[in-house]
Amino acid sequence: MKVSKLLGQRFKNAPSDCVIESHALMVRGGYMKYMANGIYSLFMPCKRITRKIEAIIRDEMDKADGQEVMFPVAMPASIWEESGRYGSIGSEMARWKDRSGNNMVLGMTHEEAAVHLARDTAQSYADYPFMIYQIQTKFRDEPRARGGLIRVREFTMKDAYSFHTSEEDLDRYYDVQYKAYENIFRRAGAKNVVAVKSDSGMMGGNVSHEFMLLSEIGEDTIAICPDCGYSANMEAAEVKLENKPSGASPLEKIHTPECKTIDDLTNRFNTSASSMCKAVVYQRNSDDGYVVAFIRGDLDVNETKLRNYLKTEIHPGIVGENSGICAGFIGPVGLAENKDITIVFDASLRGIDNMICGANETDYHYSGLNLVRDVGNVEYVDVAKIFEGAVCPACGKPHITINKGIEIGNIFKLGTKYTKSMDMTYLDASGEAKNPIMGCYGIGVGRLAASICQESHDDYGPIWPMSIAPWQVEICNLRCDDETVNSQASKLYDELASSGVEVLYDDRNIRPGAMFADADLFGVPVRVVVSPKTADRGVFEVSMRDKSWKGDIAIDGAVEEIKKIVSDELAKYR
Amino acid sequence: MKVSKLLGQRFKNAPSDCVIESHALMVRGGYMKYMANGIYSLFMPCKRITRKIEAIIRDEMDKADGQEVMFPVAMPASIWEESGRYGSIGSEMARWKDRSGNNMVLGMTHEEAAVHLARDTAQSYADYPFMIYQIQTKFRDEPRARGGLIRVREFTMKDAYSFHTSEEDLDRYYDVQYKAYENIFRRAGAKNVVAVKSDSGMMGGNVSHEFMLLSEIGEDTIAICPDCGYSANMEAAEVKLENKPSGASPLEKIHTPECKTIDDLTNRFNTSASSMCKAVVYQRNSDDGYVVAFIRGDLDVNETKLRNYLKTEIHPGIVGENSGICAGFIGPVGLAENKDITIVFDASLRGIDNMICGANETDYHYSGLNLVRDVGNVEYVDVAKIFEGAVCPACGKPHITINKGIEIGNIFKLGTKYTKSMDMTYLDASGEAKNPIMGCYGIGVGRLAASICQESHDDYGPIWPMSIAPWQVEICNLRCDDETVNSQASKLYDELASSGVEVLYDDRNIRPGAMFADADLFGVPVRVVVSPKTADRGVFEVSMRDKSWKGDIAIDGAVEEIKKIVSDELAKYR
Repeated sequence: MKVSKLLGQRFKNAPSDCVIESHALMVRGGYMKYMANGIYSLFMPCKRITRKIEAIIRDEMDKADGQEVMFPVAMPASIWEESGRYGSIGSEMARWKDRSGNNMVLGMTHEEAAVHLARDTAQSYADYPFMIYQIQTKFRDEPRARGGLIRVREFTMKDAYSFHTSEEDLDRYYDVQYKAYENIFRRAGAKNVVAVKSDSGMMGGNVSHEFMLLSEIGEDTIAICPDCGYSANMEAAEVKLENKPSGASPLEKIHTPECKTIDDLTNRFNTSASSMCKAVVYQRNSDDGYVVAFIRGDLDVNETKLRNYLKTEIHPGIVGENSGICAGFIGPVGLAENKDITIVFDASLRGIDNMICGANETDYHYSGLNLVRDVGNVEYVDVAKIFEGAVCPACGKPHITINKGIEIGNIFKLGTKYTKSMDMTYLDASGEAKNPIMGCYGIGVGRLAASICQESHDDYGPIWPMSIAPWQVEICNLRCDDETVNSQASKLYDELASSGVEVLYDDRNIRPGAMFADADLFGVPVRVVVSPKTADRGVFEVSMRDKSWKGDIAIDGAVEEIKKIVSDELAKYR
Repeated sequence: MKVSKLLGQRFKNAPSDCVIESHALMVRGGYMKYMANGIYSLFMPCKRITRKIEAIIRDEMDKADGQEVMFPVAMPASIWEESGRYGSIGSEMARWKDRSGNNMVLGMTHEEAAVHLARDTAQSYADYPFMIYQIQTKFRDEPRARGGLIRVREFTMKDAYSFHTSEEDLDRYYDVQYKAYENIFRRAGAKNVVAVKSDSGMMGGNVSHEFMLLSEIGEDTIAICPDCGYSANMEAAEVKLENKPSGASPLEKIHTPECKTIDDLTNRFNTSASSMCKAVVYQRNSDDGYVVAFIRGDLDVNETKLRNYLKTEIHPGIVGENSGICAGFIGPVGLAENKDITIVFDASLRGIDNMICGANETDYHYSGLNLVRDVGNVEYVDVAKIFEGAVCPACGKPHITINKGIEIGNIFKLGTKYTKSMDMTYLDASGEAKNPIMGCYGIGVGRLAASICQESHDDYGPIWPMSIAPWQVEICNLRCDDETVNSQASKLYDELASSGVEVLYDDRNIRPGAMFADADLFGVPVRVVVSPKTADRGVFEVSMRDKSWKGDIAIDGAVEEIKKIVSDELAKYR
């Protein structure tokens, strides 16, 4: 490809609406063009990158016994009514009526379509297991599209669905997909990827993993132990604490009119927040019933953990006058007698024999609280938010770090949610009708491309891994008005291209500075400079975009030499 | 791929809603599944076929200097408002409001998106010409989806857009695309394809070609001369006639109360329909003004030709009481004096010196009509419908045949329609702002697959050309419970697959008849049968799906032999 004919402009300054480097670089480099909020067209370089990512994904899915299929983008609402999601999904789903008045939707995901395709045909246990996947356009009306291709409304996604006759077989295959995902991200050149076991969710019991590319611009937060490699979502990371007995004191009611916050109390009682029994109030969405979580004063509640424990949706509580709750002075002693209030004790309170807590009476606190003595048989659950320096639940060392990540893929044990609701059955060996057990596995193609750019760039442009680079080699012809330079560069272009190397050829009559700036934005791994100086020396000047190597190679044999550099580089991503 | 694990059912009887063979075979063969009117999911075999077609298209588009890009499926209405098509397109376009209340549409075609992508970047004449294309999902809310993938509402399409600075350059490139299309259809194995120069359309002056696969199930009608290869759409096919003078008679008004039809008149006057001057009445859509077309009595008017000549939309006329038209007795003599009526004389009337026509008076006709003598200076235009056996306008032989065809591709000189309305300009060499001239080029991928199936099948299934076949070789293991047979078949499968041959392996324990019926439906070009009989003889039984060859090959060296059959077959589609 000649740069002179390549559609797309490169420019120097980042557009003001780009707050993320990868977004700015991909706009500045002529990779994509904004059409509407979260909707982009892709220029050739970006399309080449996403096609290479798709080829890697396809290869790994095929190796994992996947059958590539194609589901519709536009679907009748009827199959989403079967699963119940037509009603449960909100304004993220695009909906319209077709010319006959039928309700239609745009696919955000294709569990319904997968069951629809499979249910009439896989009717015997002998037909199982199988996996079907597609790589296709999806639309989700995201309220907060951001970061260029990181979070868009229209996107290309690989979505795969596996069907099994036993949990054991799903477990086995889930592991196959887990490994395929590791291969995909490695082959695409993503470096800092961790698989995070995530929130088991409201549905209870199902395992899923999110593959996170660690990045400061990520929207997800992950706890990682650098010592043992443990990683977990915030809501899945267990907080392990050991409290040492400090010596019991009697429960004593104290007048504390000036104490409204933990800080006030630590000052008043001259003790630390870890000696406080803090109350956090929530309400159930269903009936506004109160939930009071008690937790050690230096910790916070992780709402998702609490939600999962309660198996119901909750929101921060508003304490009304007739609530039976004394805002600012809430404590466990006596509160449990109010049957309208659900009380949860975080495990961080276990083993503390002497705490400060509210006395459920305005302007009064208790000191000397001992939960077992003063409240009785307390059940402790882990609803605390993990923190930097927490003890790793796997190896026990207090080295937990809190990291940001971009979710670049997820795998999920779905169970029978869709096969049950959509009435997909097979006959097992004994002739009994059963619902198959499903897994699903997704990767957003554009987001992965943008995430790799985010991870692998410098101030001047992306540094594309060879495996997904738009081209493998860029030739910079610094003097296309010089006959020798021109013929050397053009010959190299022709010979490399005809020997199967993907070459971008900058044949424009522009200043070297401008050409190099564009080359940095193209991010092509190998750069070959041809100039009067190199011609004089009988060489080409070759450099790697990642600055790992720079040197001259003789014009004689240059094609073979460059091919070797490309193939050596490609080998790193096998 | 093992058939035992392939998702999709084959069955014997065509579903009752399939009226076209290819549709029936592709449903019976487990290629596709109906989800809603004109909306299908594709099983793996069909996805493999369409991917191969896409690869052929991509290769030819790249050779034609195309840059593969990606436009959104979901677009803001705003860019369709710029071109004016948001208002002019009707219910074929899917529309909805996004969560912010913006009007959105699903792309039916991407001229607007192409101009949007290109307009800010190709601002100098030196940036031209260029071509961008994509292969992607489109949605058109077709009122009459039919024939399986032949006419659907959601489909995958290759759409390409070229931009030029002169008509000459568009002409040059149009020819490049024309040849690329010929290559694509040949390589995909479509046999009877003709390029038809089509209706220049209401917009006037623009050239386009439709590529038609000749088929009885086609919805388009084409005139073809088998002698010289001339082909044209019905509305573009010129009707050439020569009328010989038969000897003039005087104009004579005759009482014909019983004559209402051409048949009545031929009986009454004992002459042929070709001696009649027939009137056909239309009305303009704009103001209901009357248009009367006179044509030789044995011919019909082609409405599109008439419409294009008049440069206005028309519909069949309803003759009212005050119309000044005497229904059933319309003739040219005297009618021209009514200035409210537009009169058109078809060229088929030229040179006839003695005709029967209406006398514009109830129950009266004229005989002896001579247009030049009785009406005056008549302008003849070609608005006649061409017919079987008409004279070829190219070679002059009376051998025109009328054929049905499926439109499998089209190329179109768009001109500046979109660049003008969407204000895309470049500066020419003299610094003047100009609108680029566009061409556009489309191919429906699924329709091409279905059309090839329609052209290439027998009663038992599709006969896929090697270049697009879902697999290249199918191994039928007739006795998977026989150890020798099983090990021979499995070994062949492994060896062929690992040497890069695409193999479907029927490893099921079913009757040979059922296995062969399925193999016919898979339509794989090369079939290898392994059975106790072949094992005894030390051979594999090989046959071609198209019945062109059948024979035994020795087990020793079978892999090489089969590879050669495959590559010889592939070579036919280069």
